[in-house]
Amino acid sequence: MLRHAARSLSPKQCYISPRVIEAEYAVRGLIPARADEIKADLATGRGSYAFESLVYCNIGNPQSVGQMPLTFYRQVMALVDAPSLLEDAVIAARLPEDAVARARRYLAEIGTGTGAYTESFGYRFARAAVAEHINKLDHGVSPAATVNDICLTDGASMGAKLFLQLLVGGASDAVMIPVPQYPLYSAQIALLGGVKVPYFLHESEGWAMKLPDLVAAYERCVTESGATPRLFVCINPGNPTGNVLERCVMEDVVRFCHERGMLLLADEVYQENVYDTRRRFLSFREVVLGMPEPYCSETMLVSLHSTSKGVIGECGRRGGYFCMANLPAALRQQVVKLCSINLCANVNGQLMTALMCSPPREGETSYAMHQRECDAIFTGMKERAELLARELGNVRGLSCQPVEGAMYAFPRIVLPERYAQRNEELNAKEGRRLALDARWALELLESSGIVVVPGSGFGQEPGTLHFRITILPPLEQIDRMVRAIREFQDRIYEQYA
Amino acid sequence: MLRHAARSLSPKQCYISPRVIEAEYAVRGLIPARADEIKADLATGRGSYAFESLVYCNIGNPQSVGQMPLTFYRQVMALVDAPSLLEDAVIAARLPEDAVARARRYLAEIGTGTGAYTESFGYRFARAAVAEHINKLDHGVSPAATVNDICLTDGASMGAKLFLQLLVGGASDAVMIPVPQYPLYSAQIALLGGVKVPYFLHESEGWAMKLPDLVAAYERCVTESGATPRLFVCINPGNPTGNVLERCVMEDVVRFCHERGMLLLADEVYQENVYDTRRRFLSFREVVLGMPEPYCSETMLVSLHSTSKGVIGECGRRGGYFCMANLPAALRQQVVKLCSINLCANVNGQLMTALMCSPPREGETSYAMHQRECDAIFTGMKERAELLARELGNVRGLSCQPVEGAMYAFPRIVLPERYAQRNEELNAKEGRRLALDARWALELLESSGIVVVPGSGFGQEPGTLHFRITILPPLEQIDRMVRAIREFQDRIYEQYA
Repeated sequence: MLRHAARSLSPKQCYISPRVIEAEYAVRGLIPARADEIKADLATGRGSYAFESLVYCNIGNPQSVGQMPLTFYRQVMALVDAPSLLEDAVIAARLPEDAVARARRYLAEIGTGTGAYTESFGYRFARAAVAEHINKLDHGVSPAATVNDICLTDGASMGAKLFLQLLVGGASDAVMIPVPQYPLYSAQIALLGGVKVPYFLHESEGWAMKLPDLVAAYERCVTESGATPRLFVCINPGNPTGNVLERCVMEDVVRFCHERGMLLLADEVYQENVYDTRRRFLSFREVVLGMPEPYCSETMLVSLHSTSKGVIGECGRRGGYFCMANLPAALRQQVVKLCSINLCANVNGQLMTALMCSPPREGETSYAMHQRECDAIFTGMKERAELLARELGNVRGLSCQPVEGAMYAFPRIVLPERYAQRNEELNAKEGRRLALDARWALELLESSGIVVVPGSGFGQEPGTLHFRITILPPLEQIDRMVRAIREFQDRIYEQYA
Repeated sequence: MLRHAARSLSPKQCYISPRVIEAEYAVRGLIPARADEIKADLATGRGSYAFESLVYCNIGNPQSVGQMPLTFYRQVMALVDAPSLLEDAVIAARLPEDAVARARRYLAEIGTGTGAYTESFGYRFARAAVAEHINKLDHGVSPAATVNDICLTDGASMGAKLFLQLLVGGASDAVMIPVPQYPLYSAQIALLGGVKVPYFLHESEGWAMKLPDLVAAYERCVTESGATPRLFVCINPGNPTGNVLERCVMEDVVRFCHERGMLLLADEVYQENVYDTRRRFLSFREVVLGMPEPYCSETMLVSLHSTSKGVIGECGRRGGYFCMANLPAALRQQVVKLCSINLCANVNGQLMTALMCSPPREGETSYAMHQRECDAIFTGMKERAELLARELGNVRGLSCQPVEGAMYAFPRIVLPERYAQRNEELNAKEGRRLALDARWALELLESSGIVVVPGSGFGQEPGTLHFRITILPPLEQIDRMVRAIREFQDRIYEQYA
């Protein structure tokens, strides 16, 4: 065979798409990777560490740190997956009658059982349950959501990726994202070769979003990059910032998007995680459809939700949905096509989404237990959110905004100048460019076993430093986290101040 | 607020990425969409059709057309998802002891239960099961696959998409694909803005792949498009063609890829679906690692598998894996990053993949029943594959290569010249550009309720026409399919010949 010129592309110096190289995802990046190494060391007795176990606070993964699944949902899912259990009268008699009835109903709706691909948008009965849930939640604003507006997805991520792909074809297309933001967005924009347009949230005002910043960011993008912003990403409640938006700000956002023909992508996966009693989650769908013409009928809105957060915390299930409002037919057609290329979301995620949107009702056998389970989880989260923000705020060199919602605190770190200089020196020696807060998080991990994500992974105002830490571990671990961070900061100040 | 120039982008004439517009996926395209409309008509009594139900033969979705799930796998999955069932001694006693033991073992391995995100590559115990399975299947070629070579995915599609994304950054990157091919590949290449380099299979020789065609296609791409082919996609057994490759051809492919520094992406999802007793599935991994230096240690290979095909047919689960061999560290690092952005594959797909790779063993309680279930499914597929190819080959104007493997027949259609002219006239009248085989498939659907996919959706030699039809429906429906197609072709010949 002819040896071709391209042979010079040996496997050793192989090609990689530059877009892939550019993409970053800190939530599972350098720090968690080092944590996994340490975990392996601890398991095999290698290395010498001042702790015996790790506390993973890098990712919102409740059931990995002790949260229990909601019993009813799991019972129904198991019965739907293994109808032989349902057909055994003895087994069926030992399960709550509403779980058995629900499983029978779902199986009748599915017809073929859970082993088949579903419609591209997902089971119709599950989409009907989502639509009913949304319409109730949004206080009956019209038009009501229908099954055709809902698509079931593998987690909320799949919906976010789909709409980014739909509207970002390359360097002439831009996306407005909050800073700090959840790095799925920046990573996807990099993979699509699009332009990121950051709008900054105001930390000192509880991470408030302000209209003049949006306008300025938009203008800067159009003038400087020449790209056209196609989507506006809003995360509410905020990740990693925990802020919960108020109606007046949301209306500003809607007008802002409408006037510029941007699609509003509302990431509302933390909608059930609002702890501050002065705040209430309000969906962008309720806001948009409640506004006057032309906003209510023309603002293109896609809302994302997931089974991974809330009190359900079924991350492994990869369940979720998106709901579309005011999307022109031409756009919807392409959405249908993209979904059909993906075949369908996994059925267990679809089932879990249906269940999340139609929990046991008052009067049903499982209602009381289900409510107890949900309340206990929520109360625990609320306690830890308050505790963590308060305690971290009392640590030397840290300040922390209230955790109004979501699952994270995002404290600001102030470090002695000499600690920063030392990072420069270490970077020079190690031949790498570790951000200052990444150095801090790495040394926190290596000295205490606490796994957090540096603020640089989410974006932050230049010159500021932060870290994201989940509120999810059980109380005794939260105590250990706070103590470890306090000792670590005190040591830094003693040594470098 | 300022009204900005971009306001002209009204929602009514909204922007869509041109890459999305270009992507096509016929398996769920025009014909299945029309089928869904007809199905809705039939359900509500609208319209007037010569049939009472549809036969969906457009997609390899066995459990949607009556195939039953494998009992043992479903029992284990249900118990792992709902440990409360396992803790109930009465329930546990009514289930096979090996299913109970397996569920307990999986739960112990998982630790946190199925509600948590897993490692980015998936459960370690599941990857170990996959690695063991692969090493056995590949007759112990070395080096053995390890858990680090395996990543669990949402169906095989996710693996295919990941490696296309990794190596296709835009118009300077090309991918070699068979024609006919499974349209996931062409759709993904379009979405990434890459260049498709088709290599044609030889229909008259059982859809044989030939080295000179590969060389010529490669040279043409480099000379004419200026793009560099980065990946070589090989589907074995073929989809939609059903051909099963022999070792000598596979060795040609390996040398061809190695000499050009291309990654070989081996789509082996139909590996258990080989019906022709003169053929045997041989994995590319076994072939590559069995070749002399430098091929065995340098050919970059990624093999894909899925829980959706074989005899397991768990499409809804969206389970699967990819296995990497000879990938340089730099490439592997980026693979890890891309997987981490996706968080992890859904856990039920992961469990199903682990189960598929470690079925009940001889001596275990469920062994005999499991074998019986698998054998019955396989025997049924084999019978229908032979029957369908033979019967369709006897229809006027059709010829059909043997279905050596996979789940489809891909017959060639010859049509009277006047039928082709009529399509041109209808297209002019309807203002669309329906391919001739799409017109044929549409009219077949509307007259008989049989849903097939036109060959133009997979690609075919210019001037030829085909359709893809699954071998999956039960025998009585296969009879109806053949009869309907025969009558349809006879009518066309009577009317237009």
